[in-house]
Amino acid sequence: MTTSPESLPTHHRQIVYAQRPHGTPTLDCFRLATVPLLPPADGQVLVRNDVLSVDPYIRMRMEEKDSYAPVMAIGDIFVGRTIGQVVQSRADGFAPGDWVVGRLGWQDYSLAAPADLQKVDLAAAPATAYLGALGSTGITAWVGLMEFGRPKAGETVLVSAASGAVGSVVGQLAKLQGCRTVGIAGGAAKCALVRDAYGFDDCVDYKSPDFATALAQAVPKGVDVYFDNVGGPILDTVLPLLNNFSRIPVCGLVSQYNATEPYGVKNLREIFNRRVTMRGFVLSDHRNLWPEATRALAQAYAAGRLHYRETIAEGLENAPQAFIDMLAGANVGKQLVRLRAAG
Amino acid sequence: MTTSPESLPTHHRQIVYAQRPHGTPTLDCFRLATVPLLPPADGQVLVRNDVLSVDPYIRMRMEEKDSYAPVMAIGDIFVGRTIGQVVQSRADGFAPGDWVVGRLGWQDYSLAAPADLQKVDLAAAPATAYLGALGSTGITAWVGLMEFGRPKAGETVLVSAASGAVGSVVGQLAKLQGCRTVGIAGGAAKCALVRDAYGFDDCVDYKSPDFATALAQAVPKGVDVYFDNVGGPILDTVLPLLNNFSRIPVCGLVSQYNATEPYGVKNLREIFNRRVTMRGFVLSDHRNLWPEATRALAQAYAAGRLHYRETIAEGLENAPQAFIDMLAGANVGKQLVRLRAAG
Repeated sequence: MTTSPESLPTHHRQIVYAQRPHGTPTLDCFRLATVPLLPPADGQVLVRNDVLSVDPYIRMRMEEKDSYAPVMAIGDIFVGRTIGQVVQSRADGFAPGDWVVGRLGWQDYSLAAPADLQKVDLAAAPATAYLGALGSTGITAWVGLMEFGRPKAGETVLVSAASGAVGSVVGQLAKLQGCRTVGIAGGAAKCALVRDAYGFDDCVDYKSPDFATALAQAVPKGVDVYFDNVGGPILDTVLPLLNNFSRIPVCGLVSQYNATEPYGVKNLREIFNRRVTMRGFVLSDHRNLWPEATRALAQAYAAGRLHYRETIAEGLENAPQAFIDMLAGANVGKQLVRLRAAG
Repeated sequence: MTTSPESLPTHHRQIVYAQRPHGTPTLDCFRLATVPLLPPADGQVLVRNDVLSVDPYIRMRMEEKDSYAPVMAIGDIFVGRTIGQVVQSRADGFAPGDWVVGRLGWQDYSLAAPADLQKVDLAAAPATAYLGALGSTGITAWVGLMEFGRPKAGETVLVSAASGAVGSVVGQLAKLQGCRTVGIAGGAAKCALVRDAYGFDDCVDYKSPDFATALAQAVPKGVDVYFDNVGGPILDTVLPLLNNFSRIPVCGLVSQYNATEPYGVKNLREIFNRRVTMRGFVLSDHRNLWPEATRALAQAYAAGRLHYRETIAEGLENAPQAFIDMLAGANVGKQLVRLRAAG
């Protein structure tokens, strides 16, 4: 076993699932636990997690009923991706000091096998980018847009939650395809960010009382791709604006995750009238596309065409509140939690 | 000009669009008109219509707002496909006595160009089959199932309006693909027909109070293809039963055509959870597939594997009531109207 020179603590902290939410999660759904720090078994590495990514999909794992992925049981460590550094290795190809990304959970340290880890290069981009625009968030955007949206130059691509981590990348990738890009976001500040930082051609505020009218005006040629992150009433407003043969990649339904009574979508008739293809997708089904997506994202980033923002909370103990705030839309860009002060 | 020996009348009858419905059409939306019978111009034929097909899509043409096809204006002849015989021809390749199918409208006689007509062979199948299982209805079933449903042997194919003209063909084609076929229909009599006449493995009555439970029991392995003819609350009941990567070809939304307030679909979350592809389609977009579909249907019919039923009303003047009854589900199989007594 190779070990980093610094001494390791005997215990570390985890956030475990304490109770199921009814609607919006509250802090008592989370519990901070202190547990012994175990050494890696043969073939494992021990990773000290540096930054944690909290994402909307985690809300679905808190459901009792089956969704697209296994749900969490009470007492489980919360799921989540982290970037961190290997501190002990009993696995070939990994040495202390290596930076790695993986779904290592809400905890200070994690044991992991090489198959669960991806090494990343901090010379090419900052660590946090690998949890966002250059990581699973960016890959999600690429897969949904390119594989299921199939945008053509000159088409109009509409994106909900456009100021969010996925939506902001979708718009920038669509722009690189030669599309007109229109975002939907909540409030004037987020809309300004969508236009100014991410370069969308337009952005419409769904909290505005004239949202439907403003949205119709923002897409004078109709919508060819609606990249849907939210579902619910915004989807209902978009459906009548779709062009024939348009595509709706469904990346998430964040407006519905906390809903105890789901919203009833009334305008599905347009799916038929406009011969729309609506397609739900989940990143893990499309691992074959990850290398191509990763290359495209790295290329866009190196060319200065991929911008992102982050909201970083400090300390594992504050991750639950950061997650709750993110579900309410309080974050700008990717919501992260720094687990230890930068070294 | 070649003319059949029998004498032609000076006038004939048409059903014209008198006023828009609010919700369910009523008889005062239709008006019977008597107009002069005009001779064919150069390049035209005059067809004496024998049987008229009344179909759910016609209800959408009665809307004021844009749907997938041009709407009818007040005063227009109602749209509809007919089978009839050429009685005068000024077009190459057509002679009096030829049997033809086309969208010739609700009228005793029609002028038509060769491009609007398809010749059919009454030695191979009865005339009315060319308005149904061997005509546009059957082709609709084939295109939706094969192109957008993409059933694989062993999968479960669920069909709404399964006793209807399209649904009954979908089930029989799916059976030929080696699928488990389950229908949804209204009432015990229609369910018996779906099982006994069309050979579905099972059929569930959506009017039964335990519909949701019975449906779940009828698809123990979940649903891989849901061929949707109805939309609305039945779609909501089906969505939680879908398997991962299932497909929903949307052929129509007959439950919503007369709805003044559309039903809100609550379970769209399953589109995401189950990575479902939902795809609206309209037959006229897929003319490239018609020859293949026509061959497959004729082959199934010749092999005795394509059964159909018809409900035939008598007389053009009774077509409006037949259409209204069909929208309410009173027909069994294809709803037709015989315009003149068999010769």
